[in-house]
Amino acid sequence: MTLIDGRALAATIRARIADDAARLRAAGTTPTLAIVVPTDDEATAWYVRSIVRTAEKVGVAVRVVDERELLGPCLAELSADPTVHGVMCQTPLPPGISRDDIAVHIDPAKDVDGANPTSLGRLAAGLPAFAPATAQAVVELLRAHGTTLAGADVVVVGRSTVVGKPAALLLLAENATVTVCHSRTKDLAVQTSRADVVVACVGSAHVLGAAHIRPGAVVIDVGTNPTTDGGLVGDVDTQAVEPIAEAITPVPGGVGPVTTALLLRNVVTAASH
Amino acid sequence: MTLIDGRALAATIRARIADDAARLRAAGTTPTLAIVVPTDDEATAWYVRSIVRTAEKVGVAVRVVDERELLGPCLAELSADPTVHGVMCQTPLPPGISRDDIAVHIDPAKDVDGANPTSLGRLAAGLPAFAPATAQAVVELLRAHGTTLAGADVVVVGRSTVVGKPAALLLLAENATVTVCHSRTKDLAVQTSRADVVVACVGSAHVLGAAHIRPGAVVIDVGTNPTTDGGLVGDVDTQAVEPIAEAITPVPGGVGPVTTALLLRNVVTAASH
Repeated sequence: MTLIDGRALAATIRARIADDAARLRAAGTTPTLAIVVPTDDEATAWYVRSIVRTAEKVGVAVRVVDERELLGPCLAELSADPTVHGVMCQTPLPPGISRDDIAVHIDPAKDVDGANPTSLGRLAAGLPAFAPATAQAVVELLRAHGTTLAGADVVVVGRSTVVGKPAALLLLAENATVTVCHSRTKDLAVQTSRADVVVACVGSAHVLGAAHIRPGAVVIDVGTNPTTDGGLVGDVDTQAVEPIAEAITPVPGGVGPVTTALLLRNVVTAASH
Repeated sequence: MTLIDGRALAATIRARIADDAARLRAAGTTPTLAIVVPTDDEATAWYVRSIVRTAEKVGVAVRVVDERELLGPCLAELSADPTVHGVMCQTPLPPGISRDDIAVHIDPAKDVDGANPTSLGRLAAGLPAFAPATAQAVVELLRAHGTTLAGADVVVVGRSTVVGKPAALLLLAENATVTVCHSRTKDLAVQTSRADVVVACVGSAHVLGAAHIRPGAVVIDVGTNPTTDGGLVGDVDTQAVEPIAEAITPVPGGVGPVTTALLLRNVVTAASH
């Protein structure tokens, strides 16, 4: 069994971004990401700090904006700012505000984490658009591992707007035959155990185990579920699946670092236009 | 085997629309659909006439606009016209113009055939939006037949932006486990023959036959493929499937009339806002 090394892939992506960002800076443009933070949540603060650190390494500037109330206007203003190339909003959002309410205020051209429904629709229609970085990471990890996606049976477990649905659309665009499973699926193990590739994005620890994976399958584990001892575990019981799967992404060190690298790649792409 | 009667369902839907349209007219609003026709194509002209005839019956006004060149501005202008509640554009489009290029000019609030990528994205995100009427017809026919969609294994054959993908999204929202197959699918019969519901939207005559359907399955045939003798056949070989399936929509008389009725329902809904 191979552990698909997300940290190595992220490093490769970052090296390329750093070159592109250096060229942009030399030409007078500093690729800049604005992150709106509407919360005191500690996990969010930790994630934002990790983006800032990684961005510094590759030559992307980050503007962190603390805004709790006027989120829509704030995102619209940042979208209109010519010195800002990428705009994203962290969660959790204040009570009564939904992600979709505010994401429409992010210009699709700067929507580097694919939050605006228009970005999702353009993705579905096969038009140029930024996909959520996590969904992109799923495809990039499979590509890096050398998995043939055209004609492959891929089962995505989870149907969120943030990961499951955009990942399904990206995999469909790669010519995979895609099944989307969820909490109402009759027999999850029947579905997943016929798959060449299983993408787990449920958001609950160890939902998928040995009974869910067929010998030789490739498993992408998007889950990052905190444990009581301060660690992280995925949606897949890696230990149980190890003797069966051909390859799996570890948690941590799989989807996470690739997601951050791709988010920054999207900023550099947006700055290049 | 039951033939699912699209004409009967369409009549039921039209009766309801007629009531709603009468109320709107009594209150001073004539629900109005603008259809932009950029072609001399005979099949298109036939389809537009059929919409006009059906619309007249239910009290929806139709404005047919012949426009070959300035399609985007024309759709934008109709979108801005307060006396127009629904806007759609017929195909085929002039060479060099893609549906996506022009559909962005239709205001999502008037996009009664779900052509704008923003409508598709809102659909995917679970936000209020008009879906393409054909995709809606798939779900309404299954509902009318009494098929339980929650937890059902549904296989959609075809991944077009106009039918396959929006139908998959609508079925997912109904809590079905949805698989999307297409020309690159490894073994189509293996996929479809495990399905409780098969939705055929390939656009080629008789792609699905006896080997593709499992006993007791419900089959929705979206295909309308012209025959050499001037008739229409579906994507499913109905005769071959009849002894196996529990129910199937006929062609013609299945998805077609329901699609037109739902398009007009969308116009009335748009006029009610």
